[in-house]
Amino acid sequence: MDDATGHPAFSPTERSRVRRRPQRARYDEAAVFEVLDAGLMAHVGYVIDGQPFVTPTAYWREGRRLYWHGAAASRMLRVVGEGAPVCVTVSFLDGLIVGRTGITHSLNYRSVMAFGRARIVEDAEAKRAAMDAFIDRLYAGRPLKLRPTTDEELARIVLVEMEIEEASAKTRRSDGSDLVAEEGWAAWCGVLPVETRIGAPLPAPAMAGERPASADLAPYAEGAPLDAALAEASRAAASGRLEA
Amino acid sequence: MDDATGHPAFSPTERSRVRRRPQRARYDEAAVFEVLDAGLMAHVGYVIDGQPFVTPTAYWREGRRLYWHGAAASRMLRVVGEGAPVCVTVSFLDGLIVGRTGITHSLNYRSVMAFGRARIVEDAEAKRAAMDAFIDRLYAGRPLKLRPTTDEELARIVLVEMEIEEASAKTRRSDGSDLVAEEGWAAWCGVLPVETRIGAPLPAPAMAGERPASADLAPYAEGAPLDAALAEASRAAASGRLEA
Repeated sequence: MDDATGHPAFSPTERSRVRRRPQRARYDEAAVFEVLDAGLMAHVGYVIDGQPFVTPTAYWREGRRLYWHGAAASRMLRVVGEGAPVCVTVSFLDGLIVGRTGITHSLNYRSVMAFGRARIVEDAEAKRAAMDAFIDRLYAGRPLKLRPTTDEELARIVLVEMEIEEASAKTRRSDGSDLVAEEGWAAWCGVLPVETRIGAPLPAPAMAGERPASADLAPYAEGAPLDAALAEASRAAASGRLEA
Repeated sequence: MDDATGHPAFSPTERSRVRRRPQRARYDEAAVFEVLDAGLMAHVGYVIDGQPFVTPTAYWREGRRLYWHGAAASRMLRVVGEGAPVCVTVSFLDGLIVGRTGITHSLNYRSVMAFGRARIVEDAEAKRAAMDAFIDRLYAGRPLKLRPTTDEELARIVLVEMEIEEASAKTRRSDGSDLVAEEGWAAWCGVLPVETRIGAPLPAPAMAGERPASADLAPYAEGAPLDAALAEASRAAASGRLEA
């Protein structure tokens, strides 16, 4: 459904409605997808016999669907793939907010909580296509350059997909200008940004020291912010699909 | 209890024993604490009426106890504070492993899953001391430089502590040298490291552009890796406590 401005949005229920600081929350697809497409590692929450588990795992998004995968032996994928309720959270720590009182110390962050039920993608060709789509989403065009996945390799993977039923995005991004300093106290106050970037590439021995030069790896140039690289790669992959 | 080498360690049950790639798992305090002390944001998993929730939140460690806090209105803290089972996961994405087959693409990571039950710290003075300990853990010596927390501010916070019952650490850290390249395929393969660092400080307006210069903020110098800064700050705080 659409939100008040006519844009596609998720419909929050009690499960996903943000109670604390609702002014920082959004439910529209644009806000939710922006966070999801800038990330690579999600924290998947699930329940076994009343006990919660939170497993960090790589994920990707297509439309309103999230995908993640793992080994056939994975307990998480077995439970999650049976349709148990799942919460997938993606978050970024963007800065330390340093105040002059204990209570004003805080963090800059972006986060999304997405709720749904997952199912295992059983069909071998659908699974193969989705795994290629994951590589393509990260490194646009790369699947064509890889030795194709064998049936045996494919059988060792369990892939799940989850339709997002509800999701909320929450962000705080202070550049320091909104920080009120307690008068009469001298401690430095402001924001210490946290930046996650690509480092110097480490070639495998077969590369004989060669650095990555192909278009599929271009977004991940040394020094590139990871979130921007992932978002750029996602757009490049989508553009490639449109051209194909 | 101790592990086979005589070092303090957690005792895994079915809940925390790592099934996938057990050679990457450790249960000793040193390995678990190293990951926990390098982090600031945890993902807390809990269950309400069978539905899992995963909330990102700042945390800190003292001995085998984890602490986190939030607003008195927080649903997470209400549920968690009643002693419901909790899974606290801390993870770092350290690199993208880029192969010549789909299945060899992977990630470098460090992660800890910690299990326990939390309780609310009700006593006002214990709560005040713990909140100061959190600031001190991040910025050693800083609590003495801050306008003290008022009773009213303290009442707006809910603080929980969780004794870690079980925990496991899991890491993968490839520098590319262990990557076997599929022969006959030319695609670049290796590791693209991911680095999380402190950016250029953003002073609050009251600071008139002044950069942080005090010892409590020294670990967070521009360009410092966040994980190393947090670990260094933690050691500085522990050393200050010993001296006091």
